[in-house]
Amino acid sequence: MPQRLRRVAKQPSVQRLPAYLRLIKMLQEEGEEAVSTTYLAEMLDLQPIIVRKDLSVTGIVGRPRIGYDVAELIAAIESYLGWDQMRDAVLIGVGHLGTALLGYRGFSDYRLRVLAAFDADPAKVGQAVHGCPVHAWDTATSFIDTHRIELAILTVPATVAQPAADALVEAGIHAIWNFSPVKLHLPQHVVAHQEDLTAGLGVLSLKLRLLLEGEPDDEV
Amino acid sequence: MPQRLRRVAKQPSVQRLPAYLRLIKMLQEEGEEAVSTTYLAEMLDLQPIIVRKDLSVTGIVGRPRIGYDVAELIAAIESYLGWDQMRDAVLIGVGHLGTALLGYRGFSDYRLRVLAAFDADPAKVGQAVHGCPVHAWDTATSFIDTHRIELAILTVPATVAQPAADALVEAGIHAIWNFSPVKLHLPQHVVAHQEDLTAGLGVLSLKLRLLLEGEPDDEV
Repeated sequence: MPQRLRRVAKQPSVQRLPAYLRLIKMLQEEGEEAVSTTYLAEMLDLQPIIVRKDLSVTGIVGRPRIGYDVAELIAAIESYLGWDQMRDAVLIGVGHLGTALLGYRGFSDYRLRVLAAFDADPAKVGQAVHGCPVHAWDTATSFIDTHRIELAILTVPATVAQPAADALVEAGIHAIWNFSPVKLHLPQHVVAHQEDLTAGLGVLSLKLRLLLEGEPDDEV
Repeated sequence: MPQRLRRVAKQPSVQRLPAYLRLIKMLQEEGEEAVSTTYLAEMLDLQPIIVRKDLSVTGIVGRPRIGYDVAELIAAIESYLGWDQMRDAVLIGVGHLGTALLGYRGFSDYRLRVLAAFDADPAKVGQAVHGCPVHAWDTATSFIDTHRIELAILTVPATVAQPAADALVEAGIHAIWNFSPVKLHLPQHVVAHQEDLTAGLGVLSLKLRLLLEGEPDDEV
């Protein structure tokens, strides 16, 4: 396994790494041992120079006429993202979005195991959603503490996102994947990633406008 | 209204524009007429130089000591993204994710009106989900044609994403917002934006790894 790199990449490169990983794992399943920059660029609709730059943050360099070693590249990306070990998580807020995320089988591919979900609605407590038990919200902090959970997926309504986050931080959570449309105020020892659905809609709307106006959209 | 720009920005800048728009509209509701680069940078956790660069793609330039005119900036961002007119859309696949999206009130803020949803499951047809009627999937193409719909939100299972997209394109759809974990093959006259949930998880996982290892994450 390559040395775990300290290098910090720009967010757009990091955001593309899971897509590379998915593609390269598929190649590995098909028995491929090497993959070229050109192939990756074509499959992911990127310029070859961007592919080289993205992958270089993991410490792996492709070889001329051979490309990247598939097994090495998988190990390097997983190591870089911290996906080389299983990580336990909890999900807070079992509404439609929370339920959809609990049903997303892809998480286990990225070594994320949602141990339990929590909701304030007594009607939901005691159920299992896509195999994940739903507990009462007021038991979340002791569960997090007992199981030493570091990561929480936050799918609560906007109005309760900040108090919920405060309680999670108090309980020992270090990373919050925030799907509620609220920017959280968090202490320095907690990291967060905000999912913003309108960001993607903005990109698509611009592409559509340029398409309808007959403009190229190569850069979008 | 500023002239509608032809300039094409890099995707990260475009992805941030909806967040600026949300923030600036809030300021407008509070009666503010101008906003400084510094304020926007602080609120959105960005460097001031990035804020200036992001907003410059809309054709608006801030003035020293005054900042940006709030009304002008809103009009410029909306015009750039093609959000200055209402756009009708359909949603395909009323599972949990589709239901969650139909319940997302934010869309109307971005001039997106989901006229109808479609599903292949007869048990769902005839219902209204968050006020949106659910029709039979095999009536989707005639609906799209009749109502001249250009944009489709695709929330179907991975296995049927490509055939569904093919049918939508055949019916006249020009833009697909793809939530299924499949890269679609589309003709040149159709644009798409793929939502990839694992991209955000990758960023968060890296931030958490760097945090636990005591590294700074300023650039992630």
